[in-house]
Order: sequence, then C-alpha cells, then structure tokens
Amino acid sequence: MKKSIIPTLYKHNLTLLTDLYQLTMANGYWKNEMYNHEAVFHLFYRKNPFKNGFAIAAGLEQVISYFQDLRFEVEDIRYLANLKGADGKALFDETFLNYLQRFKFNCVIDAVPEGTVVFPHEPLIRIKGNLIQAQLVETALLTMVNFQKLIATKAARIKKVAQNDSVLEFGLRRAQGIDGGITASRAAYIGGCDGTSNVLAGKLFDIPVKGTHAHSWVMAFDNEVAAFSAYANAMPNNCVFLVDTYDTIEGVKYAIEVGKTLRQQGKDLLGIRLDSGDLAALSIEARKILDAAGFEKTAIIASNDLDEYRIQTLKEKGAKITVWGVGTRLVTAFDQPALGGVYKLGAIKSQTETDWNYKIKLSENPIKVSNPGVLQVKRIYKDNQPIADAIYSETDFVNHNPENRNQIQQIISFNNELIEVEQLEQKNLLQPIFRKGELVYKLPTIHQIRQHTLSQIAIFKDVVIDDYKVGLEHRLNERKIELINRN
Amino acid sequence: MKKSIIPTLYKHNLTLLTDLYQLTMANGYWKNEMYNHEAVFHLFYRKNPFKNGFAIAAGLEQVISYFQDLRFEVEDIRYLANLKGADGKALFDETFLNYLQRFKFNCVIDAVPEGTVVFPHEPLIRIKGNLIQAQLVETALLTMVNFQKLIATKAARIKKVAQNDSVLEFGLRRAQGIDGGITASRAAYIGGCDGTSNVLAGKLFDIPVKGTHAHSWVMAFDNEVAAFSAYANAMPNNCVFLVDTYDTIEGVKYAIEVGKTLRQQGKDLLGIRLDSGDLAALSIEARKILDAAGFEKTAIIASNDLDEYRIQTLKEKGAKITVWGVGTRLVTAFDQPALGGVYKLGAIKSQTETDWNYKIKLSENPIKVSNPGVLQVKRIYKDNQPIADAIYSETDFVNHNPENRNQIQQIISFNNELIEVEQLEQKNLLQPIFRKGELVYKLPTIHQIRQHTLSQIAIFKDVVIDDYKVGLEHRLNERKIELINRN
Repeated sequence: MKKSIIPTLYKHNLTLLTDLYQLTMANGYWKNEMYNHEAVFHLFYRKNPFKNGFAIAAGLEQVISYFQDLRFEVEDIRYLANLKGADGKALFDETFLNYLQRFKFNCVIDAVPEGTVVFPHEPLIRIKGNLIQAQLVETALLTMVNFQKLIATKAARIKKVAQNDSVLEFGLRRAQGIDGGITASRAAYIGGCDGTSNVLAGKLFDIPVKGTHAHSWVMAFDNEVAAFSAYANAMPNNCVFLVDTYDTIEGVKYAIEVGKTLRQQGKDLLGIRLDSGDLAALSIEARKILDAAGFEKTAIIASNDLDEYRIQTLKEKGAKITVWGVGTRLVTAFDQPALGGVYKLGAIKSQTETDWNYKIKLSENPIKVSNPGVLQVKRIYKDNQPIADAIYSETDFVNHNPENRNQIQQIISFNNELIEVEQLEQKNLLQPIFRKGELVYKLPTIHQIRQHTLSQIAIFKDVVIDDYKVGLEHRLNERKIELINRN
Repeated sequence: MKKSIIPTLYKHNLTLLTDLYQLTMANGYWKNEMYNHEAVFHLFYRKNPFKNGFAIAAGLEQVISYFQDLRFEVEDIRYLANLKGADGKALFDETFLNYLQRFKFNCVIDAVPEGTVVFPHEPLIRIKGNLIQAQLVETALLTMVNFQKLIATKAARIKKVAQNDSVLEFGLRRAQGIDGGITASRAAYIGGCDGTSNVLAGKLFDIPVKGTHAHSWVMAFDNEVAAFSAYANAMPNNCVFLVDTYDTIEGVKYAIEVGKTLRQQGKDLLGIRLDSGDLAALSIEARKILDAAGFEKTAIIASNDLDEYRIQTLKEKGAKITVWGVGTRLVTAFDQPALGGVYKLGAIKSQTETDWNYKIKLSENPIKVSNPGVLQVKRIYKDNQPIADAIYSETDFVNHNPENRNQIQQIISFNNELIEVEQLEQKNLLQPIFRKGELVYKLPTIHQIRQHTLSQIAIFKDVVIDDYKVGLEHRLNERKIELINRN
C-alpha cells in the first residue's frame, strides 16, 4: 500500500486504538471459524447535535490515514500476548495472535465526502469485507468521525450567525487534549471558520493562523502605551492591540495613539481586541472613538466565551464587532460535547453463501432500530435543489434492469408513509474510498473541503430543514418491517 | 538532555502546539531586547469543576515529556518563515527565527505532583526563567493540564459514589479525538477508575484493560445461546455476556445456561452486562435469577450513559450492580467539558535587576485578580489532617532567619481576614521538576499516582471541604493589596 501523504501527529499506527472487546470478539470469530465471513457495517448517527437541522460530515481524511497504516506491529502482538484472563492464563489464543500479525487490511470502504450536509440514520461510512477486520475498526472510526463531525457542525452554526464576519478559532488551551485541540482546529475550519490560533494545526493542515498578543504582554511593560509601542516596533504588520488589560476605553485611546505613529511609518492599526466586559456597549463606544480619530477601517475583534447564541445576542444589541474569536465553546462543543454516533452490522454471509443475511439491532426505542442491508443514500434534486434523501440497500437493485431502477427507487417510505417521488436528478452520497484495501479516492485539499461545506450550506439555505424528507426506499422499508416482525 | 522515557503518541515534538500570539510576543520581546528578562509564570485554575470541593492534579507527566523535547526543528522554522503579515511581508524577523532555532530550554520548573488534591488559585506549575521560553509554553501546558485535571477530578467523583464497586472507563468512541480518548483513559485511572476498554491507553500507560463482546457479536449468530456458547468456546476465561440484545431477562437465562456448561469445564460465568432499560429493576431481577441458579458470584456490570449522579440514583434504588462501565460522561466531562485554567505572569526582572517586579492582572471580578510573586503553597496539618493551605511568595523569606520563618508564615489572610494558625507540620505542594532545563524529578508509576490520589482522598475524607481554608500568607496579601491600589 502506498505511503500515507496525510499529515499525522502520531508516531505509530493506531491499530490498538480500540476497545478490548473488538479484539476478544475477533478472537472469538477466529476460533469459531468465522474469520472468512463477510460483513457489512455502517457508521451513522441518530440525532443531530445542538438541535441543528443537519450535521456536516468530517473526519474522513484521518480515517483514510488510519486504514492505510492498519497493521499489528510486533510490540502490539507482544502486549496482547501478555494480557491475562480470569484464570491467570493468556487471554488470546497464540494462533489468533499469529493471524493478527499476518493481517492485511483489504476491505471495501465507501464514505460520504467531508463537508457534506448529512442527516440522522444515513450511512456515513460503509465497511464491507472480512468480519474480523470490519468489526475491529469500529472504535477508532467512531472516535475520529464523531468528534470532527460534532465540531464541524458547531463551526457551521457559528459561521451562520456571524454572517459575513470572520470567525477565528482560539480554543487550543481549553481543548480536550492535544489531538482534541488539533483536530478541532481542522474541523472548525472545514465547518467554515476563517482561521485558527493553533500553530501546529496551521502547519499540519494548512489552515490560516492568526494572533497578536495577550494580557501578559501588556503586563510586562510599565503601561499600555509602552506595551503597544513596543509591539508596533516589533510587529508593525500585525498590529491588533488587546485593549482591556486595565480600562478598555482608555486602552482604545492608547491604541489610537500608537496607530497614529504606525501610520507615519506607512503601516496601520489593523484592529483592537476586546476580551472582557460588555462587548456590545464597549464595541459601540470603541467604534465611535476609532471612527472619530479616522480609524474607520480598524477592525473590532471580540473574544470571551463566545458561541453562536452569544454572537447572535451581541448582533441584536448592535455590537460593532466584525471578527469573532471563538474558543472553548467551539472546540469542546460545550453545550453538547459528544455525538452519539454508532456502528452497526447490516448484513453478514459465510464464505459459502452467495446471499446476504440481513441483520437488524432491535430496541424498544424505534430510533435505535438499525437498518439492514448494504446501504447507500441517494439525494434527490429538483431544479438543483435537494428535496429528499432516500436510504436504500444496493442489494435490491443488483439484478434489476437499470431502466426500471429509477422508477422502483422513487417509492420512498417517510415514517412508514409511502410517497412516490417524481423522477428527478439524484446522486449517491457514499463514494468509493478503498477497493480491496487500496485507496481509490482522490483526497481534496482542506480548502476544497471547506468550500464544499460552504456551498452545501448555500444549497440547503432555502430548504426548510424541518420538512426535509429522509426516508427508506420502499423495499428496504419492507425488509426492515419483516425483520422486526420475525424477531 | 536525556531521552524521554515517557510514553508518547507523537511523531514530533510539540513545540508548535501553541497559539500564534505566543510566537508574535516572543518576536516582540526579542526585538525589544527583552530576551534576557527573567519571568515567573504560574498555572492555576479559578473554580472547581462540577461544583466539587477540590480538583485532582494531573497531566504533569505529559508536561515533562513536552519540555524534554522542546525545540524548533528546521521544518518548524521554515513554516514560521513563510507566514505573512498584513502587508504581505514576512511576519517574523529572520534573526528572531535564527534565535528560535538555537533555542535551548533551560527554565526552572516546579509543580504539584499528579494525584494531589488541589484548590483554586493555588499554583500547580511554576515556570521561572527566560521570558520568551516561559511565555511560549503557556498554551501547551494549559491544554495538557486543564483536560487531565478535569477528567481525573470527574473520575474521583464517580469512584466516590461507586464506593467499593469497580469503575471501568469505556469512553474512547465518544471522546474528543484520539488523544482526547487516550489521555482521558490515563486521567480516569489516576482519578480512581479500575480499568479501561482502551487498548492503546492500556499499552502506553500500563492501565488494566477490560472487555468482552458487543451487541454485534450476538447479532452475528442465529440466537443468544449460540452467541454466548460460541464466545465461551473461544474465550472461556473472559465470559461476561451482554444480555440485552433482545429481551434482557431472557438473555440472563441464556447466560446461565451457558454458564452451567462453563462450570462443567472448570470455568465460570464471570458476569453479565446490562446496557439498556431500567438498570435498577433489571439488575435486581437478574441478581435473583442468578442467585437462584447458584451464580451468586457472577457480577452484574452496567453501562449506558452513566455518571456519578446516575450511579447514585441507581444505588438509592437498590440496584444490584457491582461494576460500572462509564463512558461518554466521564471522558468528555459531559456536564462541564472544559476547565478554565489560566497561566499568569507573577513577576519579571531585567538582566541587570536583582529584585523582582511583582505583577498582577486586574479585573472588575475579584476572582480574576492574579497573585503577584514567586508563589508556593504550603499545606498545614494538625494530627496528620490537613487544616489549611497558604499561598505565599518565596521571595518574602529568602533573607529571613529560618527560625522566624514558620512563625511569620502562620499569619494567613482568608478572604482578607487575618488568622493566626498554630505552629504545625507543613508541606510545600510545589516540588522541583526541572533545574536549568534538566529533569530532577523522579517520575512515579501510574499505579503510584493512582494510589496517591486514593490516599489524598482518604486524607481529605474527614475534612469539611466547604470550610477548608485556602488563603494568602499575610505578606503576599499586603503586597497584592498594595499593587491593586497602585494600579
């Protein structure tokens, strides 16, 4: 397999990034001679985060990097060989560990490209292949996708409220660990942020980086004029002054004073930053003072526990802020810090079988009943506007005449109500990523992904999201009902 | 510097894991010829998370590893050299970048050992040294310490409610990124958890790993008896059956059936796991059925969005659960997913000065006013019970007669009320970690750290936490008031 070109933080491959039960089950499948069974698993989520109308797909690049490096190193095998069961004897069979060591990843993987608008129950990643391999990767995939999707969606919400203003992600120091910070910066940019303060994320992922100075800079000098002057002396092309270390309005006046000196040198006061107090009132006052002094183009940047709700409130109060620095509440998705994505078996067959055995996970809670099959999603368009998504099983169409295919597919069950959808343009959301373990997907740049998000959001702008129909193609719906009744 | 022995996930050092403004300020200090200034910074937090009475210090090991590898690689410098300012010209001075490339970390660092009970405003890490170096590390330190302290504290709360039951951390799939999962597993173990499902964390940090099988295992077979039998066949020394895939009570009966076969082979049914439904009622019913069948020692394990509140409620309802699997709500600290730790300048001096210039960050909010000085904390004991913590500045005692020292230190300001504390046993919380860039601290094992947490919690068990006094030694208090009045 060709060497990964995807930037990675990690020294080793992440094959052991899994729950132990994936490995004990693998040992079980192996010992029960099910190692050649073929299975289909789907990664999906059940409920939109933040009461949003949709989510933004994200995390695929890291998933691809993970798959490209999926193999057990000798030291991994040694670690597993030393694990003990309740009787003090080895937990894993020696021959199973030999099998793991020879393991070569060769699944067929399809996924929804990053930046795509997606809905609950739609398969976002589909893994088809050897039961052991397809089961093993569950935890790592969920870890990567759940978090990045959560943050990309949060960022899209913030960017929507900020409208044409810039949104900068400043969250590293409050992020959940190093990678929690770095992948949050990536996902936030994909979701629509304009830059980050996180230098390592900037370097790894080519995200624009932003930053000027902190309160400690001001405190290191005798007074604010001295601090701003010294900064202007050192970084004349990066002058955004933080004005709230002592008295904010006084700080604005000192910033203007130094701004005048900057202008004499052919530079300018790019902005001032407010980090505390009544941001609406202070920004309105600061704007007046700046304008009166001829600094109409100097931006007012604000930070301090912002999120989409607070930005909305500030805008309603007439705040004169045009750049929003958003930290903790974005990178930890503070109001909902986890997304309950899941990974479920859709179908299985032994080596000797030709037809799939469809599988369903039952629950008293209908939202938790999974969909059986080898699932795909088509998005149906009318006049270039998406009007509905239909989840279907590819197995239902393999032997059908393509002429009939579209016609059959147009009957869709929305909450068990069958609706015939007009023959229209349609696109499959799942795209081929790996075929027999080989990458067949051309990775977009992060800027292309971000652009995709922005255009997806623009396409969905006029869609009444609460009315947007996501249903099951009628054959899939019938099979699901049949399986529910059988169990 | 000697090679790090600390397990690390990362391919490169994390020197660029910082906010851009740390580097632009560094350029500023350099250009303003302040590169030889000496500074003291303190990392602390202002408010206990989860309305807990204290926090558990955590993250130091990762901080040490970070410092040991702190240096700019050529590729880092190249990246920084390409960053542009507003005028399209280089953001950083070429000579500053040369300076960074020659950079050798040589600060003096003191820190509170992991697993220690700590309180708001107490310095947890103190960095003394070159202003540029001491400023540069702020973001990375906060990222590492904020999160691990948050999770260790959450785990301690859960362990407290679970009493003598086992608590297993199962959160990887919902964690905030890869490192968000792995360091959460570490911090959860430090905080008192008994094991994790996370295999990579287990391997890296020597945490016990636990796991058996998922719903998908059951779904891969025709029925539960077939699934449990196959598992028992493969992993006879690891038989905990998940019984709720279809009907929970039926599942318990099938588990017992297979448990009887296990006993014929000299093995046993170690446990059953409940993952949905009314965990209290189901566990009570399952316990009765298990006991009636002679499986009194079979444990009942429960999972499903648990945290300290839900475990408490289940215990009050008489749930017969003795092993708690805790995931999302632990590893993301769901009810408060970020800790607002900060890093503030305490004192500064130029190369030619001998005395420190004390620094304070003011705020209208008294909780946000920082403490000036070169801070240390002493914990005062009476009959081996901690009775108060006093924050003091070491600079106040350097030239004093050690005979007088204890006496002077005994006058402590608690909320500006001066209280004379009896002459008692006392211990400094900050311990030497680095001296001139060299590690002087003997790293404890993770098991020693966890034991330290458990004994710290036992020591504080009889302390009425709401009454526990954390104050400022009277000289520090006087200086702080003086600085507030001066500004």
